[in-house]
Amino acid sequence: MSFRLALCQMAGSMDKDESRKTAEQFIRQAAEEGAQVISLPEMWDCPYSNDCFREYAEPADGPTVEFMSRLAEELGIWLIGGSISELDGDRVYNTAFCFDPKGKVIGRHRKVHLFDIDVKDGIRFMESDTLTAGKDMTLLETEFGEIGVAICYDVRFPEWHRKMALAGAKLIVLPAAFNMTTGPAHWDLTMRARALDNQVYFAACAPARDEQGVYVAWGNSCIATPWGDFAAHADEKARIVAADIDFGRVDEIREQLPLLRHRKPELY
Amino acid sequence: MSFRLALCQMAGSMDKDESRKTAEQFIRQAAEEGAQVISLPEMWDCPYSNDCFREYAEPADGPTVEFMSRLAEELGIWLIGGSISELDGDRVYNTAFCFDPKGKVIGRHRKVHLFDIDVKDGIRFMESDTLTAGKDMTLLETEFGEIGVAICYDVRFPEWHRKMALAGAKLIVLPAAFNMTTGPAHWDLTMRARALDNQVYFAACAPARDEQGVYVAWGNSCIATPWGDFAAHADEKARIVAADIDFGRVDEIREQLPLLRHRKPELY
Repeated sequence: MSFRLALCQMAGSMDKDESRKTAEQFIRQAAEEGAQVISLPEMWDCPYSNDCFREYAEPADGPTVEFMSRLAEELGIWLIGGSISELDGDRVYNTAFCFDPKGKVIGRHRKVHLFDIDVKDGIRFMESDTLTAGKDMTLLETEFGEIGVAICYDVRFPEWHRKMALAGAKLIVLPAAFNMTTGPAHWDLTMRARALDNQVYFAACAPARDEQGVYVAWGNSCIATPWGDFAAHADEKARIVAADIDFGRVDEIREQLPLLRHRKPELY
Repeated sequence: MSFRLALCQMAGSMDKDESRKTAEQFIRQAAEEGAQVISLPEMWDCPYSNDCFREYAEPADGPTVEFMSRLAEELGIWLIGGSISELDGDRVYNTAFCFDPKGKVIGRHRKVHLFDIDVKDGIRFMESDTLTAGKDMTLLETEFGEIGVAICYDVRFPEWHRKMALAGAKLIVLPAAFNMTTGPAHWDLTMRARALDNQVYFAACAPARDEQGVYVAWGNSCIATPWGDFAAHADEKARIVAADIDFGRVDEIREQLPLLRHRKPELY
């Protein structure tokens, strides 16, 4: 079954109302251009900074989730809400709320692997200073088939994506914001590798680069195919990145090169 | 600790004596150029064909193992003997015999994942028609640290390489012979991904391309670094590919970006 996937490579702002306005423009345009599944980037409504995560956080019944729900329903689209800062009790999560075309929340991925680095005499960034890690794998049941959702640093762990592929995901969508060091070195390689090894479509949705922002993102949103090449690939500018996703192609490649069937889990 | 690794991208022949002569020339040259660890390619003494594996097979005390042992001892090198067709009782394996500088066999990797494809109305190649699969992970204890060894199609399974990295391998050497379809599509990507995800050096040693051979190999022997880029990369021609391997660099990268420490095995 074939469908159109669009990634909204937008830049958020310090002002949440403005970020929502930008997101709405992107989503409306993507839907007008025929996308049935649409994703926003990581932390699109909150500056990517430990100073901001708690301040910008909202509960699951807050205005940003409601905003996304309303838009999904109005446009009749499957919406992967990038990620926002979610407040649950006293805890803050980096969370992707996902919606069906009725606007119903059908998945909520809380980033499982937090980005904690602490290099002696070097950079220190500890997401776990403010964020709590999720524990659950997120698969969306859609009319097209199962879609896995993970967030940014989750991509570094092949085990996590193997688990989603074995559970049935044929497309994995990753709201993500690599930086100007790891972006050029590792972004393309990692997205293509997850696609090829698991023989799935792998789509990474990044924010557009804002050189003046608190965090300068690599951009380069892309959609890799189950054969490991790119069906679509952006530069760093604000734009929509879209491609046709054909789950028949996944089955075909898995038939030709049966990697998942050739695994030997008893030896791993 | 730093050392020089050389991969011998040689073409074997239908005649085993001639293949041994070629291998000897390559190994002597690599040693003269300062390599302390040297690898041969997959099935360097046997045409890569189900028709040949049994005919060319030799036991562990056969002339080809003896030849490699003698050369390792004479030159005082660590030798990863690519792979040869090994006969054990009635069974035939695709096996990498590995030698220390005294010529002693210190590892014997039998290819674990056999290349079996059987596409309806398409290509059929079943290594398991003639070969038996190995079951064991192969780590060589050397004066430099631990070196993992796997063979060709083994590389398709991230689980296997993760297992070696967690067991202590900081370099993985892969005698391998991709073909003219999967080579251009997947070779570089897969070698770099295994290196980056596991933060190890990853060296793939291919045969030189022989357009008239029974199997036309992709060549492109390469050495990827734990940062995911290439320290050395060949074209398809007969040549030696070498680089300095620095396990201190592995530790440094793992300190800066602690991927192995950030795994959550309880969730996989």
